[in-house]
Parts: sequence; structure tokens; C-alpha cells
Amino acid sequence: MVGSTTGVSIEAVAGGVTAPAGFTSSALHCGIKAKSGALDLAVIAADATCPAAALFTVNLAQAAPVTLSKQHLEKTGGRARAVVVNSGCANACTGVEGYTHASRMAADTAAALGCQPQDVLVSSTGVIGVMLPIDKVSAGIRTAGAALARGKGSETARAIMTTDPFPKEHAVVVRTARGPFTIGGTAKGSGMIEPNMATMLGFLTTDAEVPPALLRKALQESAADTFNAITVDGECSTNDSLFLLASGASGVAIDDDSYPALLEGLLAVSRELAIGIVRGGEGATKLIAVNVSNARTRAEARQVARTIANSPLVKTAVHGADPNWGRIVAAAGRSGVRFDVDRATVHVGGVLLFENGLPHDDAAPEAAEHLQGQSVQIDVNLGSGGGATATIWTCDLSAEYVRINGEYRT
Amino acid sequence: MVGSTTGVSIEAVAGGVTAPAGFTSSALHCGIKAKSGALDLAVIAADATCPAAALFTVNLAQAAPVTLSKQHLEKTGGRARAVVVNSGCANACTGVEGYTHASRMAADTAAALGCQPQDVLVSSTGVIGVMLPIDKVSAGIRTAGAALARGKGSETARAIMTTDPFPKEHAVVVRTARGPFTIGGTAKGSGMIEPNMATMLGFLTTDAEVPPALLRKALQESAADTFNAITVDGECSTNDSLFLLASGASGVAIDDDSYPALLEGLLAVSRELAIGIVRGGEGATKLIAVNVSNARTRAEARQVARTIANSPLVKTAVHGADPNWGRIVAAAGRSGVRFDVDRATVHVGGVLLFENGLPHDDAAPEAAEHLQGQSVQIDVNLGSGGGATATIWTCDLSAEYVRINGEYRT
Repeated sequence: MVGSTTGVSIEAVAGGVTAPAGFTSSALHCGIKAKSGALDLAVIAADATCPAAALFTVNLAQAAPVTLSKQHLEKTGGRARAVVVNSGCANACTGVEGYTHASRMAADTAAALGCQPQDVLVSSTGVIGVMLPIDKVSAGIRTAGAALARGKGSETARAIMTTDPFPKEHAVVVRTARGPFTIGGTAKGSGMIEPNMATMLGFLTTDAEVPPALLRKALQESAADTFNAITVDGECSTNDSLFLLASGASGVAIDDDSYPALLEGLLAVSRELAIGIVRGGEGATKLIAVNVSNARTRAEARQVARTIANSPLVKTAVHGADPNWGRIVAAAGRSGVRFDVDRATVHVGGVLLFENGLPHDDAAPEAAEHLQGQSVQIDVNLGSGGGATATIWTCDLSAEYVRINGEYRT
Repeated sequence: MVGSTTGVSIEAVAGGVTAPAGFTSSALHCGIKAKSGALDLAVIAADATCPAAALFTVNLAQAAPVTLSKQHLEKTGGRARAVVVNSGCANACTGVEGYTHASRMAADTAAALGCQPQDVLVSSTGVIGVMLPIDKVSAGIRTAGAALARGKGSETARAIMTTDPFPKEHAVVVRTARGPFTIGGTAKGSGMIEPNMATMLGFLTTDAEVPPALLRKALQESAADTFNAITVDGECSTNDSLFLLASGASGVAIDDDSYPALLEGLLAVSRELAIGIVRGGEGATKLIAVNVSNARTRAEARQVARTIANSPLVKTAVHGADPNWGRIVAAAGRSGVRFDVDRATVHVGGVLLFENGLPHDDAAPEAAEHLQGQSVQIDVNLGSGGGATATIWTCDLSAEYVRINGEYRT
């Protein structure tokens, strides 16, 4: 992949979340997941406390680790040494005891690393309303803290999984006139996936040197078009969190001039991870990109794209490889955005299916063929003359989604 | 069933949409549906032109029959002689030709009845973007117009079905101090079911004598708590319409004093039909009543109830008989309504599962037992002290929903 910012090139590299210099990680089975050996705990650590930014779920029901991580970032003014994360238990709706458990995870990690508890961010994913087996978690953190190393990105990516069918990690090196820096990350889904910042857990690292305020801005801007532009089922979880730590170990300093290079690199890593979450959505067999163009505003373009992307009828039609453009038009029509249906067009896989208020059903077989593939493209031009565009990625809705979620706890 | 309005009693009677005096109907197979003999056309007629009210989809993409019926009601100032309805083809996204077809359905029905085309309301349901076989429909209308009779409510209820697993009809006699009158109706679902006025097709009749303005008010008020309080999949169709015709044949006049009796009767019929739509929702195996109480306003109570009712994770959990209150709390938390999660409570089947921010998991087996049944009750008290309540009915989400909607056109 080659970046478009002048003089900047972006290239994928191995290593995931520990690809950037100045980061180590560690992952193990501490005993939250019943299955023996299933990784369920990870620590991602910077060599020293460094600038950190985060985005959290907008759900009113916030898990204890979300509350605690917010408090820690406020206390430190946007700095952190490490993130400790467990899977298999969300530590959400767990009251005062749950908050104590999250605090203990931070304290144990801090003890292992020799930093302050407030320098540790905490993250959990899994079943809601169940208490953490905190003694097992504590023991696990001690072991993990002693085993931190480079090159454990893949294990870390696996340790944060719940119903994810595959691990998600990505890293790029960004070459700029000031020198190269690296961005890496890992993320997990795969149900309860919907913007805003109701994505999942995501952990990003970079060895660029970035002041906290600029780091926050870069995270917000890159997430808007990646982690906040995906939806699996329209749900917004109690735990969703996205973290970005900047070690500065590359020696490449980011200021307003070099900011576009940082943003571009973050977009590249985040897009790959976000699309990976959708591809690995519960029961997903197809990735669907819903592109809405010619809207009056970007917000309206997003609203239409999101309504189509969350439509169960569109998602089931795609699952069945049915080029049912009528459901796409109907979803756009109920999105709350005003537009003239007679001026709108719908393409599926580049095939025109609806124009001037009328179907092009002769083209349906060609569109159906496109829908047999694993990557589906839906383009809706609203004809509003505004020129605003937006893309939302989603997946199809399958019987497997129902099976997974009907049987999750049983 | 006994009404609560003083001096009024309400009793279920047979006859469906032609139970009220002054109405006849007729249904047949005209050839829209491929299956030989499958009913796909119906006419519901008053003996003479009478007050009529209607509610239509809020989707921007409105089917031709919706556009036409709106125009007719405007022209007549809220009067009609008949409704002609077909299933198997929505006549939506069909452009000028589709509008011409809808007009021809009205004209043919008017010719058969000896009234003006503007006295006929038109309704269609089925696949979007397909042209009606209008010559077959015309021939069918002529035959149907000559066969109008009382006692054909059940056939009419079957003729409007698409993927509905069973027909839905209901009628009640309302006994008041001024004498008895009757209200009847039929409705169909069963996908693309979501408020507002994105319910389905519904046809209501009464032999009460009701001025057009009062009829409109009664339809709006009764639909708000019935047809507009259900959701199957959060979708809002291009065709959804609800009609109410008042023949006056009972001789019982409705004015402001007797209005509560009319409203109560309409609520009784509409609730039965609306719940029938949910019970017969695509792939549904369970009816779910989501009751939200102690909200600050009725609108907020509805918003929370609707978010829970449309949550795929809640619906799949109910399908799997999993008392996963965490998903209920998470859905309420992302509804956009502010409340204190620690003050909220969640009951499933009357069993307390969540209180003071903590689970009552000891009660989970009892709640799981309730979820094995076909009628599920979810009660969420927001603890906001406002006292406002709302109920939304929905159904579970099953693999069968996916199968139906993935294969609908194939």
C-alpha cells in the first residue's frame, strides 16, 4: 500500500501491536475461559510511560474497566505505561466489586512493571454481569509481567478474542522526510459492533513521538472513518475501547506539518483492523461496503449508509446473494434523511439496478453473480447534489449469527 | 374481554373485517402469485360511500398505491366506498407505469361498484420493483366486484398474506348506553415491521357513525399503542397502510362523549391484530412484550422499549431461552435516553435479574424457564421517577428469519 500524502510511503510489516519500537507484550491462559490453554489475558507495555489516547463506548452502561481507564487518563493528562486486557469476562454490571477488580488489575500490572497504577489502562471483554476470578487474573498478570517481549503480537491478538473466528493484527511502517516510524495494532469483535465508538477492543501503538493532544486528535480522526464506520449488528457494547500509545522510540517527532503522515498510517492500520472485525463478524460470510454519495452533508451520507448497513433485510438478501435493490431503497427511504428517490441510483457490484425510480432488472443476474463473492459493494447515489460521501462496512446476517447469539452462554 | 370505560362492554365476535353491518368483501386468485389458487386479490366495500381514515408509511420511497390513496382521501375529504388490495406484488419503485396501474385498480373497482375512482383506496404488498400483471388484476377486480358478500372475512384475511404464517382477523361488538356497534379488521405482516406507521397492511371497519375528523383521531390514537407499538425487524416498508372505514349502519353515532367507547373498541381489535402480526413475524417462535416504566416521558419510555425490542442480541437470546439481562441493560444504555443504570431494574417473566447495578443470577434458571414459553415478558424500570410507561411488542430472531429473507425472491 502506498500513501497519498506527498513524500510519504506506507508499507505493511509484520509484528502487529509490538511492531513499533518501544513496546512489548505477553499473553497467557489465566483461567477465565473454561477451555484449557485458551489465551484470556494480555499485557501490552511501553518501555516507559508515554503519551496515550483512548476512545470509549457511548453506552450509559459502562463496564468497570472503562470507568477506571477514563479516570486514569484524566489523572495522567493522557499518558500510560501499559494496557492490561482480559477476555472471557466483560467485568460489566458488576458493581463496586467489579470496579475493585479493575483497580486490582491496574495495581498488579503496575507492580509488575514498576509504575503507578494510574499509568495502567484496563480493558475487558466477554460475558456481562459475571465477576472476574480475580485471584487467577492477579496471578496471571504477575506471570505475564515477567514474560513481556517483542514478537508476541500474534499471541496478544489471540488473547483478546471472544467469538472472533480469527485474530486481527496489522502494522505499517510510515516513511517520511523526517525518517520512518511504525504503527501497529490488534483488535477484536465480533458481536455488539456498531458506531459510535461501539466497536470492540482495539489497541494501537506507534513509535512516533506525538504530544498527547495531537495523539487524541489523530485517534479521533482515524477512528471516524474506520472503527466508527463499521457495524455488525447495530449493537453498542458496555466495554468498547480503543487505545493508542506512542512510545516515541523511533525518534520521529510529529507536529502539525508531519501530522498527515501519522494520520495516514493510523488510517491504514485501523482500516485493516476494522474491516477484519467485520469480516470476522458473528456468522459473517461476506464483507459489505456501503458507499453513499451525493448527499447534502457527510453526516447525512453516514446516516443513510448506516441504515442500509444495519438493515436485516439488506443483510439477509446479501447473504442469499439476492440483488434485492428494493430493500436498499426502502432502507435509505426510512433513514430519516430527505432525498428524492427518483433522482437516486443504486449499484450493486458496479451494476446499475435502480435509476429514475425504476428497476433495471435485466442487470440482476450480473449483480447476483457479484453477490456470490465474499466482498460486496453497494453504491447509493442520493442525487442531492451535495457531493458528500461516506462508507460504512458491515457483514451479511446469517443463521449462524442467530446460533452463536442464541447459545452464547449455554 | 370487558372494557374499562364506564357503562361500556366489549365482546369478541366472529366475522373479521365484514363483521360490522354495511360491509361486504370478496377475495380470489387473479394470478399475481405463481401458486395456483393462492388468494392474491381482495375488495372490501361499504354499501355506500362513508367516512374513511388512513395512516401511511413514513418511508420516503412510497409505493404507487400509497401515493394514490393519499390523493384520493384528500380529494374526498376523508370518505371512501371501498379498498382494493393485492398481495404478491408491492407496486413500489415502479415509476409512472406503477402509478397508472394503481389508478386502474381504483377505476376498475369503481366501475364494478358504481362509484367514483376517487372513492376507492388502493393497497399492495409483496415484492418491490416488479410490475403488476395489470390485465389479470383488472379481470380479477371485475370478478371480485360481482361476488361481494358478508361472511367472506376469512378469505379476505388470507388474500392479503405474503410470508404470513397464518391469517389475522378480529372483531368486537361494543355495547354502549346508545346501543351496540361493531368493529372488525384484518391485517398482514410479516417482515419490514416497525413503527412509525410502518406496520403492514391493516383494514378496519366499523358500523358506528363517525364524522371524518373524529375517525382520523380515533385511528391515530389507537394505532399509537397497537400497530405503531410493534416491531419485527426494525424495517419500515414502502407500502404500509392502515385503513378505517365507518359505515354508520349500526345507527350508533359517535361524538366526543361516546368517543372513549369507539377508541376502546378500536384498541381491542387493533391490539389483537398487531400482536398477531408479531406472533406471525418472519421466523418468530415467541412473542415478546417489552415494558418500560418509570421513564421521564412517554417518548423516552418508547425509545428505550423500541431499542430493546429491535436489539438482535436480545432477540437471539430470547430465541435461545437465555435470560441474558446484560444485553437488555446494554440495549437500554445505548438507546439515547439518559437514566441511571444503578437505579434501573430488569425483570424477565416477573423474575428480578438486575438491580442496584448488579445481577441476581440465582434467579436465572427461573427466568430461563419463562423463556421456554411462547409469550415472553421483559420489564425494565428506568428508575427515573417520571412514571411514564410504554410497551413495544416484538418477536425473537431465529435462523428461520434469515432463511425466509435470504431466499424470498429465489
